Amino acid sequence: MKGENPNPSPRSGAAAELLCGVNAKALLDSVDAFLFDCDGVIWKGDKLIDGVSQTLDLLRSKGKKLVFVTNNSTKSRAQYANKFRSLGLSVTQDEIFSSSFAAAMYLKVNHFPPNKKAYVIGGEGILQELQLAGFTALGGPEDGEKRVQLKSSCFFEHDKNVGAVVVGLDPDINYYKLQYGTLCIRENPGCLFIATNCDSVGHMTDLQEWPGAGCMVGAICGSTGREPIVVGKPSTFMMEFLLQKFHMSPSRMCMVGDRLDTDILFGQNAGCKTLLVLSGVTTESILGDSSNSIQPDYYTSKVSDILKLLGE
Amino acid sequence: MKGENPNPSPRSGAAAELLCGVNAKALLDSVDAFLFDCDGVIWKGDKLIDGVSQTLDLLRSKGKKLVFVTNNSTKSRAQYANKFRSLGLSVTQDEIFSSSFAAAMYLKVNHFPPNKKAYVIGGEGILQELQLAGFTALGGPEDGEKRVQLKSSCFFEHDKNVGAVVVGLDPDINYYKLQYGTLCIRENPGCLFIATNCDSVGHMTDLQEWPGAGCMVGAICGSTGREPIVVGKPSTFMMEFLLQKFHMSPSRMCMVGDRLDTDILFGQNAGCKTLLVLSGVTTESILGDSSNSIQPDYYTSKVSDILKLLGE
Repeated sequence: MKGENPNPSPRSGAAAELLCGVNAKALLDSVDAFLFDCDGVIWKGDKLIDGVSQTLDLLRSKGKKLVFVTNNSTKSRAQYANKFRSLGLSVTQDEIFSSSFAAAMYLKVNHFPPNKKAYVIGGEGILQELQLAGFTALGGPEDGEKRVQLKSSCFFEHDKNVGAVVVGLDPDINYYKLQYGTLCIRENPGCLFIATNCDSVGHMTDLQEWPGAGCMVGAICGSTGREPIVVGKPSTFMMEFLLQKFHMSPSRMCMVGDRLDTDILFGQNAGCKTLLVLSGVTTESILGDSSNSIQPDYYTSKVSDILKLLGE
Repeated sequence: MKGENPNPSPRSGAAAELLCGVNAKALLDSVDAFLFDCDGVIWKGDKLIDGVSQTLDLLRSKGKKLVFVTNNSTKSRAQYANKFRSLGLSVTQDEIFSSSFAAAMYLKVNHFPPNKKAYVIGGEGILQELQLAGFTALGGPEDGEKRVQLKSSCFFEHDKNVGAVVVGLDPDINYYKLQYGTLCIRENPGCLFIATNCDSVGHMTDLQEWPGAGCMVGAICGSTGREPIVVGKPSTFMMEFLLQKFHMSPSRMCMVGDRLDTDILFGQNAGCKTLLVLSGVTTESILGDSSNSIQPDYYTSKVSDILKLLGE
């Protein structure tokens, strides 16, 4: 993967410290920006996690830059800004880095030819970001109800001008889309296979986990024998944009997330400080298990602990 | 994988010989049984490949035992016997070893508890074979039209008594089935993850290839982080049954198939002679490519070349 830091955070490997009054104050003093994952950190499904709004307000009042870095590709940045608004949070589109946006930016920086098209297995957010970046995208939700009949002499046509298949979370996954993406990758010379992310599961609803983009990406790996280019966390592809935009040193940033293998690894790969919150998929026993090799700098139960620990 | 031969065929690695009159005669004299793959060897989709019927008749007339070993799990052995009949071929259920049957036999020989159930992502054939073997199976085609809504407070229930998820080719794959299988594997302690096979694509129709079981298996690998137990080719699990049934030495058998990484590897893993036919997914240029390390003993364009070469 592109852009990984050859010098990971010196703390990686050492056991995580529980966040307390003293180290929370030191952390706040040592960084200028907080990068937040969203699902399991800011919200679960459509429910805001307790105390998030006040915590973000406090951090902004202390002059900290806030950035939201999400692997969930189903929404575009504009749709995410709406979601933040609907939950009572004031976040602008410029503060949001989604893996749908990252997929479009990957094509842009790699000079994807304007006469080529992208086929999407995933949500409306990927299509919107691709189109905003000036690309022709097909597939996505409009192929959700399409069915195929495996009958003799049935021939499945695909567009020979598709030069990239972009795969993200797709709750409307079907055999039609799988065949379309598979044919493009196997038969169109040079066709790229881009994964927004490879999360195995995620809190698509507040009550439980559901298969994530890793499921759809795994399906296309299985039918093509190819490995994807991953643009979401833990790949640091998005970090390059972030750094260009905000002119900040990664060592003055803290990545806050609920997943060890995406958020914390992403922060460490980029050279940021890292804070794990236990309000999402990772439990304290997973963190402490001998099979886990990813240790954040700090951990705490939820984002709003910062408020409490700083006595605000 | 179980049952692999520690002494692979001595010819593996040496370049394949084109079948000719002399070596065809020698091959026939050196084996008592021919094991045939079906898709791409006997038929393509629902079309019989030219000359197959006469070739099978000739081999039977020379006293050769014929066995059909297929990775396609959508049908049960009974359904395969019907397909052979409908194409004018006289083949009995006892001569058929399908990966649907292998999945049921895997549970049987591993003493799968009778109070546990199997959840199926795949076709009717898997359900039928599981039920014939005395197991309770759920899922499969009846879940093909089920949809899920990722709404707040929506909770997806799954059966805690599912002790195995069996995954095969499923043209009716959907998010409901993926969530069901994922929950069983992630949340039911000790739940097995069984793949009928991992073929990336197959000739589900005569005109082109479509995503195979490897696609659905890849999806579940992606959502669970688990690797499957594979019971179809190239795993030699089915060979153990075949040998028990027919009391034959593998060295007196010839595996005939169109795929290097399943059929030919299966034959070599089991210690059989191997014949590649070019009537399916493998071309002469794939066989000869420097990236291909799997060389059969012999290769020819199609099964009926045997007739011609023997001058019958």
